[in-house]
Parts: sequence; C-alpha cells; structure tokens
Amino acid sequence: MPNLLSEIDARIERNLERSIDELSRLCAQPSISTQGVGVRECAELVAEMLRQRGFRAAIHPTPGHPVVIGEAAGRSGKTLLFYNHYDVQPPEPLELWDSPPFEPTVREGKLFARGVSDDKGHIACRLAAIDAIKEVSGELPCNIKFIIEGEEEMGSPSLPAFIESHAEELKADACIWETGGVNFREQPSMVLGMRGICYVELSVQCLTQDVHSGLGGSIFPNAAWRLVWALSAIKDSRERVLIPGFYDDVEQPTARDMELLANLPDSSGDMRRRYGVQEFLKGLQPGTELRREAVMVPTCTISGLTAGYQAKGTKTVLPARASAKVDFRLVPHQSPDDIVEKLRKHLQAHGFGDVQVELLSGEKPARTDPDHPFIKLVADTALEVYDQEMSISPMAGGSGPNHAFVHYLHVPIGSAGVSYPGSQVHAPNENMRLDLFVKGAQHTAHIIQRFAM
Amino acid sequence: MPNLLSEIDARIERNLERSIDELSRLCAQPSISTQGVGVRECAELVAEMLRQRGFRAAIHPTPGHPVVIGEAAGRSGKTLLFYNHYDVQPPEPLELWDSPPFEPTVREGKLFARGVSDDKGHIACRLAAIDAIKEVSGELPCNIKFIIEGEEEMGSPSLPAFIESHAEELKADACIWETGGVNFREQPSMVLGMRGICYVELSVQCLTQDVHSGLGGSIFPNAAWRLVWALSAIKDSRERVLIPGFYDDVEQPTARDMELLANLPDSSGDMRRRYGVQEFLKGLQPGTELRREAVMVPTCTISGLTAGYQAKGTKTVLPARASAKVDFRLVPHQSPDDIVEKLRKHLQAHGFGDVQVELLSGEKPARTDPDHPFIKLVADTALEVYDQEMSISPMAGGSGPNHAFVHYLHVPIGSAGVSYPGSQVHAPNENMRLDLFVKGAQHTAHIIQRFAM
Repeated sequence: MPNLLSEIDARIERNLERSIDELSRLCAQPSISTQGVGVRECAELVAEMLRQRGFRAAIHPTPGHPVVIGEAAGRSGKTLLFYNHYDVQPPEPLELWDSPPFEPTVREGKLFARGVSDDKGHIACRLAAIDAIKEVSGELPCNIKFIIEGEEEMGSPSLPAFIESHAEELKADACIWETGGVNFREQPSMVLGMRGICYVELSVQCLTQDVHSGLGGSIFPNAAWRLVWALSAIKDSRERVLIPGFYDDVEQPTARDMELLANLPDSSGDMRRRYGVQEFLKGLQPGTELRREAVMVPTCTISGLTAGYQAKGTKTVLPARASAKVDFRLVPHQSPDDIVEKLRKHLQAHGFGDVQVELLSGEKPARTDPDHPFIKLVADTALEVYDQEMSISPMAGGSGPNHAFVHYLHVPIGSAGVSYPGSQVHAPNENMRLDLFVKGAQHTAHIIQRFAM
Repeated sequence: MPNLLSEIDARIERNLERSIDELSRLCAQPSISTQGVGVRECAELVAEMLRQRGFRAAIHPTPGHPVVIGEAAGRSGKTLLFYNHYDVQPPEPLELWDSPPFEPTVREGKLFARGVSDDKGHIACRLAAIDAIKEVSGELPCNIKFIIEGEEEMGSPSLPAFIESHAEELKADACIWETGGVNFREQPSMVLGMRGICYVELSVQCLTQDVHSGLGGSIFPNAAWRLVWALSAIKDSRERVLIPGFYDDVEQPTARDMELLANLPDSSGDMRRRYGVQEFLKGLQPGTELRREAVMVPTCTISGLTAGYQAKGTKTVLPARASAKVDFRLVPHQSPDDIVEKLRKHLQAHGFGDVQVELLSGEKPARTDPDHPFIKLVADTALEVYDQEMSISPMAGGSGPNHAFVHYLHVPIGSAGVSYPGSQVHAPNENMRLDLFVKGAQHTAHIIQRFAM
C-alpha cells in the first residue's frame, strides 16, 4: 500500500499541467446560478469530464438548475460519494479583479478565476486523484459516485428534495464534501457541520415614484428610513437579535465540541491582517470563545442595502423604494422556515407591516459525529499527505446542503480539497494554489484507497 | 399699455415653434453638474443665446463650474435681474424614461427632456419674453441682467462667494427667481423663501475587503449594520431629529406666514394621486398644518443607501463599506455648517466615531418680505395673464442660493415661469407643458413692462 500510494502521489504531480489545463477550461465557462448565466453549458461540460473517465453520467432536471450524477464501479463493494457544485458566485465588483474572472490566469503559483476554489478546483482535484489511481492500478478500488449540483451558491433550493427522491441511486457508505484544504497554518483541516441559512430580502415601497426631497421630505413617508428603522428593530448594536424566539432552538456546544474548538489554531491574527479587522465583535479576544462565536452561534448579517441615489455627488431625491439583503446563519436545530415566520411576526408587531419579507434561500444546519470511524480515516490520511495533524472543527461558519445528506443518505461527511484562507472565495481575485491542488488530490487518492479496504 | 401688452402676448404665441426649437437644442446638450458632463459646452451655448439678443455675455470661472452673466441696457434706469441655472440633475434611472433624456421630444403638448423644466425651459421662457418685447417695441424698457450658474443642482457651492465679489456688476432693483409657474389648480404661484440645505454623505469602512458572510458574520464588524444604527441615532421613527440643538435656531412662522399658508389651496389630494402617498407623516391631515410642515420645518431625508450586493438573488457577503446620502432641509436661521458640526458631535457621542461625515453641499435659508411692492407687482401681472389670483407661499420646500441674493444684493425676489406639478423635476420623464411656456413668457413680459415704469 505505501508503495502504491507513493506511485499515485507521483503520478498526480506528473499530471499537474494537464489537470490545470482542464480546470482552466472549466473555469472559463461562466456558471452564475443566481443570474442564470452559462449554467446548462457548465453542467454538460462537467458530465463530459466524467464520461471521459468512464463514468456513467446523467444530467437530471430539477425545478431549478440541473444536477449531474456520475457513477463508476470499483473492485470492492463499498461506495464513496463526492458532493460538488459547478455553479459560482457573481464576479462583481469587476473592477477589483487583476485579471478577468472568466479568463483563468496562472500567476505566482496560483490559478486565478471565479469558481477556481469554490468549487471547480475541487471537481478537478478529485478527477486528478481518480486519473492517477486508474493509471497506476488500472481500476478503481471501490465504487465512486459524484453528485454535482448547480445551485449551491443560491442555497441549494432544489437539492434536498432531489436527494430525497434519488436516495437509492445516491446510496453510499461515506461522503466527501465539496470543499476542504488547509488553514492559515498550512494544516489540513476539516469541518464536521455547517450552519444553516435563512437569506431574506426586505423591501419597502412607500410611494409610486421618487420625489424631490425638498417637496416630500417633511410630509411623505421615506422607504429608506422605514427600512433603516425596521433593520434596527431586528438586531441591536450589541449584536443581539431582537426577534422573539430567535435563540429558542439553539443547541449548546458539547464538551467534545469545546475540546475540538480548544485544539484549533488561533487564526485571529491572520483574519486581522487579511480583512483589516480592528476589533472583533463583542470585545472578544483570540481564543476558544472567539472560535465558538465564529461558528456555533447564529448570525444576522446585512449583505446589501439599496435605496435612491448612489453615484458620485448629490441628488436631492426621496426614494420611493428601499431594500436590504439579510443573511441569517443558523445552528442546530434552528430552521429557516421558522425563523422567517418569526421575523415577519416581529416586524408586524413593531409597526413594520409595510416591510415585505421574501425568503430567497433557506437551508437547515446539520452535523457529523466527531467520533465516526470515517472521520478518523480522513484525518489519518491527511497526516500521511500533509505531514501535519488535521485540524477538526465541529462546525463551519458557512452553510451548505449537508442536512439532506445526513438526513436522507445517513452518510458521515469528511473533507479533502484545494482551499486555503487566501482563496478569496466569493470575492474578487478568487484563486487556487497549485501546490495545494497536488496535496488535495493526493489526500483524496489516499482516502479512496484506504476507504476501499 | 394694455394694447402693447396684447401685442407682446400675441407675438410670444406666434414665436412658440421657434422658441421650442431653441429650447430643444439647449436640452440636447447634457450639463450634469454633479458628474461634470457637458457643463462647459452648455455655458457657451447659453452665452451665445444671450449674445444673439444683443446682450453682453461673459463666462466667468469659479472654483467649480462657470457662471454666465448677461447684461443689456434699456430705456429706464431700473434694473431687473434674472437668476437661472444651466445645469441639470443626473438622468438616472434611465430605464424609466419613455424617450431618452437628452433627446428632447414633444408628445401630447409637452416637451420631454432632462432639464426642460429645471431650469432650461425658464431660460428659454425669459428669452421668449425679451424677443417679443423687442420685436414689438424695438427696445427693452429697462436694464436686464442675467446670472446663469452651473452648479445649482449641486447646491450652488461657488455662487455665494461669486455674488459677493460681483455685487456691483449684478446690482439690481429686483430679481426674478429661476423657477415659477402654476400649481395643481393651474393658479400662478410664487414662493417667498427657500429652505437651506445640508447634504452629507455618511460612510463607514470596517474591513479592507468584503468577506464571506459565513466566515465573518458572527465576529467581524459589519459596515452596513454600523450605518443602519448610526442613521437610527439621527432620527427616530416619529420623525424627530435626535441631534442635540438641531431645532435651536428654527424661526417660528409669523401670523402673516400662517395667513398666507391658510390661503394656499389644498394640494394633498394631488400629492396622493401623483406619488401614491397613503398617509402623510405624523398623521397630518390636509390643511394649514400640513402645509406649514411641508415648508417651514427642517427635515432629515435619506436620499440614498449603498452597501454590498444589490443585484438579483443572493450573494452571501459581509460588506466592507457602506454609505448613505442624507439631505437636511433647513429653515431660517439654521446654517449648514452648524448642523454638520452638531451631527458629527452627536455621532461621536453615541459611539459612531467610525462613521465619516462629508458635507457635499450646504446652503443657507432666506426669505423675501411678503409685503414688498415688487411682490405685489409680480402678483398683479400674474392675474392679468392667468386670469387667476396668484397663490403665494411664505417658503418653498426646496432650496436654492437665494440667501446670497438677499444678503449681498438686497433684492426682493419674485417668481414667474413654466413649471407645473407634473413637471417631474429630478425624476424620469421631466417635461414642460407648451401652453405654460407661453403663459410664463407672457407673465415675464408683463413684469418687465410694468417694472420699467
């Protein structure tokens, strides 16, 4: 086994240029799910990449964007499932990119493109592992399935029902999540759960058209003010969400969770440097409490505000309409439907019945047991490849559709991949380090080999 | 005199097509002062239009956009000063215009274009009156001066100092303001004062770049939330401005003011229909109090909000930066410099030292005495032309640089012009009614003729 693994590792390195060429073609295909740009074309490209490896691949319709399922048989009866998504975030603001987001460019050992780290690099990384295994041993050691969706960046609205109705086809013994990689200390890292999300748009319209602010300022209702006051009624400046019952279903961390959190490295200095954070919220200092707060409490984040005149200089206008995008991250056992209902009631009760609440995206939170044997296997193989202990967090700050995998497929979920803290996911100059692509593919290959036994 | 005036009135009607052609050329020249688009070209065009009438016209530099001064001698020793501006508001949102804003189009007896009512139609209207007078009597009955600035839509930042330093050149016995016209009842109307303005941009930057909301939501400061909370500290939902001392210098209306307000027609129904207002603020019902509130109290209006993702769908981002445009309308004897200083102190005192306050535009409020003989002359001539009593308001809701005229030139200020409540000033589909262009020019001609005596 060690010799076989070494051969596979070497093969992955040797194939790097070919892998990056293929990944560049994938990143050159826009697939902005929230805007419906290039989605179908990207699904077809991904299916074709699977078929070139001998997978049976099908593009399944959903009420939203299609899901690609790929399947290939291997020597043992065990089945490993890879979850990925082919869709990407919008590339705006375009002027902050050093090279165009859909023209993949290698600079300083990194490949820059929208989606290269989230999540197309991970698709390519898994295919690189599979290619190397097949080139070295002529076959796959176990069955491998892929489920690659096209709505992850919209909150995977179609995926839970799709997984429920395709549970038999997707049956597996374990799952590797769409992302993975190293932390700011170059340690391989894994998260065992994801927060849910309840992403809403609040909108107010008080007038049928904008009006001169000198005319209406004293006597007409102002949508922007209504929005500001409604938002202020949702969270106070001490970061406390004011919606009654918001915290009711929040599960407190276990002793094991706190142990995992205590063992995580301190990333606060890295965050300060990278994002220019002066002070963490609530006066939190670096340590276990800051890390707990970062992933195990629910949030209420304003992601966008829009009203009236926004260009340079002055326009003396009273805006007819105002809106905000608000992103709540949820922890077990909060649910988006419950939270949006409580939000609506709260606004109504505080005299903000004129504020419309639209749920744009909802996902439930879910977790994998830290003591599952598959989690140990993923951590052990990471040590082999990275020569460092794997850092394991009980939860991630971000969200994903893991609830459906846990609930309908009953699989433990581990991580392996190409990400690092400088990946700039969801931001301008998204990138992937080529050295971490190699490591991620090697880790994936080790997982497949050991899992198959 | 009646015969002479009838001849002049008829001549204005006969010249209408020529006047509208000239006005269309003027409106086709963009002159968006706040964006610096087409400003110089428009100043030259306006100066040329004056010279074609035998005016001496000069384009004077200022620290901002140039001021055009025109001067022509007439029979009597009296001097009438016309104040206008050649700049216009930005045309956005473009998609709501039925014809392009800088391609003047006549439809249903109206000319549509950005600036056609505010303020280029008024320039053309005055020139139409002057043309007719000269065609009929061969000369001007009094001296006429024009001051036409290019920064009115930015709050006339250069004008007060310009007027102060050109006070001798601009010396006059009375002034006609840049705007005038009829109210929703087709009554000629005049305002005797203007609120001041203190237009600020509030901006907050908490991070050096946007960050994934799943990563930073619980622990990073959010510029959009900081902005929302800061705004909430400025005005409460009962419309009370919370800045200490904000109301200190507010002059209460006199008995004469209240009498003028009581005599004004009720425009509340028209405002409801035009702007879709459901309820006026503070539960005000139609009547003198609503009219007093509309023009004689100071305001705090949010004119714009900007943060993070504003397009369709979702983007899970925590914005690094957020900003708001806030428009305070001031009444005598508030001053913009004082208000902005009080605002800064207030934000600082409430823990919002991270919110930057930039004064984008400031103008002082000022008024003309309702009992000045020139005001009576303007009202009497309006009755001749419109066959209706002139409606006189002690103040306008809007702002303008009248303080400098009152303070440095000591002129009474009256109104005559082409506007009506459907002009859509500062909004899409700005327009001017051709019949009101004729009336406005006739009223202007009558003012000139009677003033000269």
